[in-house]
Amino acid sequence: MSDVVTAAMVVIGDEILSGRTKDRNIGHLAEMMTAVGIDLAEVRIVLDNEAAIVEAVNALRSRNTYVFTTGGIGPTHDDITADAIARAFGVKCDYEPRAYAMLEAHYSKRGIEFTDARKRMTRMPEGATHIDNPISLAPGFNIGNVYVMAGVPAIFQAMLDNVVPTLKTGTKLLSATVHCPFGEGVIGDRLTTIQREHPDTIIGSYPKFRDGSFWTELVVRARQPERLEAAKAAIEAMLAEITPAN
Amino acid sequence: MSDVVTAAMVVIGDEILSGRTKDRNIGHLAEMMTAVGIDLAEVRIVLDNEAAIVEAVNALRSRNTYVFTTGGIGPTHDDITADAIARAFGVKCDYEPRAYAMLEAHYSKRGIEFTDARKRMTRMPEGATHIDNPISLAPGFNIGNVYVMAGVPAIFQAMLDNVVPTLKTGTKLLSATVHCPFGEGVIGDRLTTIQREHPDTIIGSYPKFRDGSFWTELVVRARQPERLEAAKAAIEAMLAEITPAN
Repeated sequence: MSDVVTAAMVVIGDEILSGRTKDRNIGHLAEMMTAVGIDLAEVRIVLDNEAAIVEAVNALRSRNTYVFTTGGIGPTHDDITADAIARAFGVKCDYEPRAYAMLEAHYSKRGIEFTDARKRMTRMPEGATHIDNPISLAPGFNIGNVYVMAGVPAIFQAMLDNVVPTLKTGTKLLSATVHCPFGEGVIGDRLTTIQREHPDTIIGSYPKFRDGSFWTELVVRARQPERLEAAKAAIEAMLAEITPAN
Repeated sequence: MSDVVTAAMVVIGDEILSGRTKDRNIGHLAEMMTAVGIDLAEVRIVLDNEAAIVEAVNALRSRNTYVFTTGGIGPTHDDITADAIARAFGVKCDYEPRAYAMLEAHYSKRGIEFTDARKRMTRMPEGATHIDNPISLAPGFNIGNVYVMAGVPAIFQAMLDNVVPTLKTGTKLLSATVHCPFGEGVIGDRLTTIQREHPDTIIGSYPKFRDGSFWTELVVRARQPERLEAAKAAIEAMLAEITPAN
């Protein structure tokens, strides 16, 4: 199992939990992780609350290869992620000199005051390194196995593009999809047998409902292509045997 | 604080974490809870894994008024939510007689075999009560403060519509939105002061980025209308004082 690399995500923000903002980062991270062979094992969405962030990050960083956070690194009073991550690691949080100099120069050039709020965006836990932000300059950061990124989707995606090439990736989990025109009730027993006979695969059954009737998307996942093909063939053979009246 | 009612959500399903399926239930639950005055405090997305489900449900049910789960109550081998919830409560899981009779009659009338897979949909922890499913019959269930519902959005929404009127609701958290044409850096310091001067409100600052420039949505939340209005007025006064060059 040494080739399995796992990740977890902590989405930080009252606005997601109130329903005001619909998260668009979870699906993106999930797709990226799958693409590079990292298993996303858990996601938590928490409030802008230091204790909640600390609990989530500490629970997840101890049992996953990587933890990614989004949200709470801007310049306002509710942006408390940097301080919370420092607390989680038991280190100090302060203005990071290189980020401070970078933003100071940026605002100075534009004749804009470098306010306390803007300085806030340069706070990082001691020992953190930058994650470059090609869109709005203020960097995210990495400490230990935790990667702290922005919540604005365009910035999160740009930061993640900088992080992914630096990650250790696992053996990619391959997948194959089989369309099943029947509801899950029709195939459930047979599928249980197929899963038992193909233990090195993960067979997922995703019920779909449209216009009053059910169909099912069957997804086989495996790390070895031959195991994937064998399970897929077994499912196709099973489906060929079913008559709709069944 | 006795008028504060909180909820948590556990989204169960490998397909969400692999990125194959984009969750559409979190945003819906968040909006519904906000509408009826329940604070959604945390969401976790976990794999189809019994230990992961048990851990999440037990952590969340002990510290929230309600826990809602979606996913994993269908007829296939990867539908393990009923058994996991029973394990979390330390009770037996078995075919629930009323659900069993209902589904047996349903399939019998249509001349369809009541297979083990279909019977699986009637499994519930001992002591659970039904959540009616007006779309595809197989019920969800309620045990203690945990409500177990389907992952298919149309069914989840229909089940939730049956659950919400039975819940104790809190004093509704009112909200008011103020459009801020400036980025967070411009207003951060002033906003910190306003938040400090209006402790019975929650002021959220949500950065928006479009076409190369930033603007901000400011959202004030409070349970008392007069507190909400006072903080909103303070923000509007603050914005009126800002000149774009600042």
